[in-house]
Amino acid sequence: MTKTSAGHFFEDYHVGQVIEHAVPRTVSGGERALYHALYPARHALHSSDEFARACGMPAAPVDELMAFHLVFGKTVPDISLNAVANLGYAEGRWHRPVWPGDTLRARSTVIGLKQNSNGKTGVVWVRSEGLNQRDEIVLDYVRWVMVRKRDIDAPAPETVVPELQSALAASDLVVPEGLDFTGYDFTLAGEPHRLTDYAVGEVIDHVDGVTVEEAEHMLATRLWQNTAKVHFDLTVRPEGRLIYGGHVISMARGLSFNGLANAQMIVGLNGGAHANPCFAGDTIKAWSEVLDIAETTAPGVGAIRLRLVAKKGGEPFTLRGEDGKYLPNVLLDLDYWALMPL
Amino acid sequence: MTKTSAGHFFEDYHVGQVIEHAVPRTVSGGERALYHALYPARHALHSSDEFARACGMPAAPVDELMAFHLVFGKTVPDISLNAVANLGYAEGRWHRPVWPGDTLRARSTVIGLKQNSNGKTGVVWVRSEGLNQRDEIVLDYVRWVMVRKRDIDAPAPETVVPELQSALAASDLVVPEGLDFTGYDFTLAGEPHRLTDYAVGEVIDHVDGVTVEEAEHMLATRLWQNTAKVHFDLTVRPEGRLIYGGHVISMARGLSFNGLANAQMIVGLNGGAHANPCFAGDTIKAWSEVLDIAETTAPGVGAIRLRLVAKKGGEPFTLRGEDGKYLPNVLLDLDYWALMPL
Amino acid sequence: MTKTSAGHFFEDYHVGQVIEHAVPRTVSGGERALYHALYPARHALHSSDEFARACGMPAAPVDELMAFHLVFGKTVPDISLNAVANLGYAEGRWHRPVWPGDTLRARSTVIGLKQNSNGKTGVVWVRSEGLNQRDEIVLDYVRWVMVRKRDIDAPAPETVVPELQSALAASDLVVPEGLDFTGYDFTLAGEPHRLTDYAVGEVIDHVDGVTVEEAEHMLATRLWQNTAKVHFDLTVRPEGRLIYGGHVISMARGLSFNGLANAQMIVGLNGGAHANPCFAGDTIKAWSEVLDIAETTAPGVGAIRLRLVAKKGGEPFTLRGEDGKYLPNVLLDLDYWALMPL
Repeated sequence: MTKTSAGHFFEDYHVGQVIEHAVPRTVSGGERALYHALYPARHALHSSDEFARACGMPAAPVDELMAFHLVFGKTVPDISLNAVANLGYAEGRWHRPVWPGDTLRARSTVIGLKQNSNGKTGVVWVRSEGLNQRDEIVLDYVRWVMVRKRDIDAPAPETVVPELQSALAASDLVVPEGLDFTGYDFTLAGEPHRLTDYAVGEVIDHVDGVTVEEAEHMLATRLWQNTAKVHFDLTVRPEGRLIYGGHVISMARGLSFNGLANAQMIVGLNGGAHANPCFAGDTIKAWSEVLDIAETTAPGVGAIRLRLVAKKGGEPFTLRGEDGKYLPNVLLDLDYWALMPL
Repeated sequence: MTKTSAGHFFEDYHVGQVIEHAVPRTVSGGERALYHALYPARHALHSSDEFARACGMPAAPVDELMAFHLVFGKTVPDISLNAVANLGYAEGRWHRPVWPGDTLRARSTVIGLKQNSNGKTGVVWVRSEGLNQRDEIVLDYVRWVMVRKRDIDAPAPETVVPELQSALAASDLVVPEGLDFTGYDFTLAGEPHRLTDYAVGEVIDHVDGVTVEEAEHMLATRLWQNTAKVHFDLTVRPEGRLIYGGHVISMARGLSFNGLANAQMIVGLNGGAHANPCFAGDTIKAWSEVLDIAETTAPGVGAIRLRLVAKKGGEPFTLRGEDGKYLPNVLLDLDYWALMPL
Repeated sequence: MTKTSAGHFFEDYHVGQVIEHAVPRTVSGGERALYHALYPARHALHSSDEFARACGMPAAPVDELMAFHLVFGKTVPDISLNAVANLGYAEGRWHRPVWPGDTLRARSTVIGLKQNSNGKTGVVWVRSEGLNQRDEIVLDYVRWVMVRKRDIDAPAPETVVPELQSALAASDLVVPEGLDFTGYDFTLAGEPHRLTDYAVGEVIDHVDGVTVEEAEHMLATRLWQNTAKVHFDLTVRPEGRLIYGGHVISMARGLSFNGLANAQMIVGLNGGAHANPCFAGDTIKAWSEVLDIAETTAPGVGAIRLRLVAKKGGEPFTLRGEDGKYLPNVLLDLDYWALMPL
């Protein structure tokens, strides 16, 4: 009789389990236009077919975070519908661009399980993959979430905690085929700074802010077919609609254009924490820290490893209090690799 | 001197009158992307070109409700600008899918008239048709509305009340050419339930809810070029902006994915009532009741007749009070046919 | 160390300076769909490929105001980030339509400078051009803004005030190649009025109103990649988020369909004033005045010069008080040329 899915609980997972996620999605110029309406996205490679062609691409790919959100959204009904918390990301790699016309689907493999000492919840590690219509991997990443048990008397599984890299090495990154920054037009891109102009440890205040509205984050989250009810139903949580963490990621990445206009394509996700929840009415600002700089084998293409912090209120460049915990105004602490002209 | 249209009044209509509605509209991937941003639409056939191809279609058609809204929107300036109430729908049939690139226009024929006993208003029945760029009928449906008279002294027309089917028979439904569910992928579609898993009388609580925002329903209604001012101008009605009834239909249909993921394409609209008005801030939830089940002549394709109820607050599976009237929390009572794998 | 741009100040400009603006943008059906969701845009030539073909176009061009907003948005970081006020527009001409697939970029030339007597600000005149991927000019217009000085002790530049036409002559207008209104379908267009039905001095109340929402104007402004922080960050100004003046232009133009459905394409911008700021919650209504009527050399194509006024509250057809200043309810006073069937 119950045709609806209540999602999976902790005891439903086992290490090695492969979950094919539902509802493949074809991307068009429509999704790209909405991405530009929802976020202050201005990176030229995603904005202009002509700019992308001058960089060796056949046309402008969609934003890498759009691919991430679409894949993430598909995993929600199977992975995080009963999640208490989204604990972390690791080893995220973009393997090839997504173009309008591509169809994405998603698959996750359970790679770790650990019941919590309270016996009521457990941590599930999955490696999720996004695949295109040619069954090529578009991106993959590891995510771990704390999930409720349906039956607290269900026996604990054997604990398996996967070994994860704290950060991808530059040599692990995949540079899109054909990418070539030797003829890069810094004027059209919007800023003159090339990779060698950035120094490890340098911090950048991205200055601009956006006060988040309910309608906007819901449009975004729905666009990725993310079904987590806390993002849509105002009656679920007394403190209000919880904004999808990915909305904060894209907003902060968009804001980071101002100072990082040439950090064109995201190719690696080393880690990330949604430090505090975000609600409508919060004004998001962002700052970045340069964590590493590297060359790649592609012509003119370097890689920059960045910490991207989103915050509401408070000062830039502060992250944790004396107790080592994130300050209450910090929303996001993301560690990623992007490609930048040398 | 008055260049603006005040719309038609009751005495402007006569039985047999054909009205060609203005402003044809070409659909693209943009409208589809917006549909996915505005509603929790996840039916795989509308989401993925690849899934649609595996079902015998050349590509993913746009949601059938999008075609309905576009046609409905075009009829508004000529039919319901001076409507006091939208009284009902009947005999709605989708004749062929709409694809990105198609251009839709609309035409209505007046098929019934009945002046009300108060002499101030009357009921107008129209059969509206949506046509594509090849002059093929995409959908048609009967709608009746109560319309104001301009001049209450205008003579009453002869009363003509059309005979309408209370529901389409399964044999009246048009299955899109080429549709074939014999190789249907239930995993990608999101649920394992096939037509034979549903029983007449079965009810399904779709669980999820969406709290409606002003910006979202206005974006939707404008996208369909629906010009009824009550949906946009907050100063028109003291109780607030009235939400376009079609927004509630699409929201409820999207929510019904959870339990009816395989009710892929809407092919018939038997009837519908907007039981109570919906306003921003309402949290819409939905439940369905299986009214009928039938086979079709297409391979692997069955038809399911469903009652779809949208409500704000209250319990599922309750519709009317002891007085026989809709409960105040009921927003929509829709009766439709969809295609589902056997 | 400072990688972010603080924008240009008055002393950074010199007459003759050419600024190539950043971030080219490829337009698709997605941007068009969003335009129809954001504004009550119903002009048939922009809505239907079939209607456009019947008028000699290869397909429906995007709305001329979309091209304007995209070009304007690109100029913001270089021209008006430190602007105190947007003072006026002149000599705006659309040279050719923009089609989905086109890529737009923008360039501005400084054509005038005048330091204000207070020594703290100055007026900068620029002629901005939008170019497509073939380096063809799509539109150009003159805008002048009041810009802050970084250093009030910086010497005043030589004053150069450009001579600008108070209005384009009809003979200055560029009619899109191939445009032919001899077979124009007034029924599909929505109104029967041709150019000769309008009289100079005639005024039209467009009747409908839209109460503006925060999410909508932000989506629009972001879509044009306009980065002015006053439109997004609620904490910048005590009176609230200032709505991008172009949002008011497009809203008023959309509303003007009702009475000017056949004023299909905008080809000239003679002038414009954002008389008062607009904020979320304001209900925008519009009225027009016919300023001039002319023929063109294209078959069946006439030109109509219109004053388009957007207002919040108050009566139509009133613009200025006894002191000669705009009434406080007037938001926009725009003077433009559109093409209309003879």
